[in-house]
Amino acid sequence: MKKNQPIRNAEATKKRILEAGLAEFSAHGIAGGRVDRIARAARCNKNLIYIYFQDKQTLFTTVLLKHLRRIHDERPFTPDDLPGYAAAVFDWALANPDLMRLLAWSALEEKAEGKAERLAGFEAKFAALSEMQKAGHVGTVFPPDFLLIAVMSLATAWSVASPFAPSLGPKASERQAALRSSVVEAVRLLASAGRGTGKRGKLQ
Amino acid sequence: MKKNQPIRNAEATKKRILEAGLAEFSAHGIAGGRVDRIARAARCNKNLIYIYFQDKQTLFTTVLLKHLRRIHDERPFTPDDLPGYAAAVFDWALANPDLMRLLAWSALEEKAEGKAERLAGFEAKFAALSEMQKAGHVGTVFPPDFLLIAVMSLATAWSVASPFAPSLGPKASERQAALRSSVVEAVRLLASAGRGTGKRGKLQ
Repeated sequence: MKKNQPIRNAEATKKRILEAGLAEFSAHGIAGGRVDRIARAARCNKNLIYIYFQDKQTLFTTVLLKHLRRIHDERPFTPDDLPGYAAAVFDWALANPDLMRLLAWSALEEKAEGKAERLAGFEAKFAALSEMQKAGHVGTVFPPDFLLIAVMSLATAWSVASPFAPSLGPKASERQAALRSSVVEAVRLLASAGRGTGKRGKLQ
Repeated sequence: MKKNQPIRNAEATKKRILEAGLAEFSAHGIAGGRVDRIARAARCNKNLIYIYFQDKQTLFTTVLLKHLRRIHDERPFTPDDLPGYAAAVFDWALANPDLMRLLAWSALEEKAEGKAERLAGFEAKFAALSEMQKAGHVGTVFPPDFLLIAVMSLATAWSVASPFAPSLGPKASERQAALRSSVVEAVRLLASAGRGTGKRGKLQ
């Protein structure tokens, strides 16, 4: 047992670094995030962060991917139920402002390599949506990549990281339920446009 | 004539500061933007920036509002033609990556005061959309604030500042035309849902 102690300690330290990284990067982004603040919050030596995670950019990408993978496991993509998926994304976007901020920083600051895994994930979803369209379960008015990006954009439009979202105001939770219904209905409209006859979804 | 020379010089300097500010803030955001780099690019004394624009945050807000007002004048909001407005927003979002990056930085970094004018602008648009709904020109399935934020989110989803947009790839301009058509069609669906009978827009 004792032999594994250093490994367990290393894992515990890595975990603390990732947690401290989420808080630091969410608040300050990549350029503004400070490795020495992360080290202090994680109660470890600053050099250890470079040994475990190479550099600040890599630590940022590791933190972001860790949480995106967790969310993906908890709420997998459901190409046969886009409105339900949109509702789930809407809920986690409001429940996880830190993560939404990380995503927004990533668009502004992250290098292309850091985005590669996420883009591969999108490609897999585009393919799954395309299959659903061929099988007639999803309408064909919109191409699959447009549909997916539309779902993500509509479902996250009210998060703290959106440049357009006004504050939900004093009746936030009431408003939130109404907005979730609107997101679901909007995605239902887009995903069913052109289903079946290829015309039924078109409004005149 | 000579009497006005210093005023004209001051205006020219302010203009250069605002131009240099756009480039600097677009690349680095508010915290990462450096006033001395802006001063160097604008060929002026750093102190002059503080005299003219108070502080870095205020300069950022001034740059952002200047360009948003310009766009608003060039392409005013058309509550009676949301699909056309979405097409215009789509075009400027792709043509003005600098400005889209400023907007994204503003969501992450700007203080509430800086956002006040923009929120007031949104309120005016909500009211205009509400009037269009009462007059039967816009469908009533979605509340006006949801509709407007949906239009802005869909139309800007493919800009460089979006956390979800994949690169448009080698056939970018071809893809761009197809995506614009999809944005227009999506907004047409949302804006006409529930128009007239209040049911006609609903897909079964």
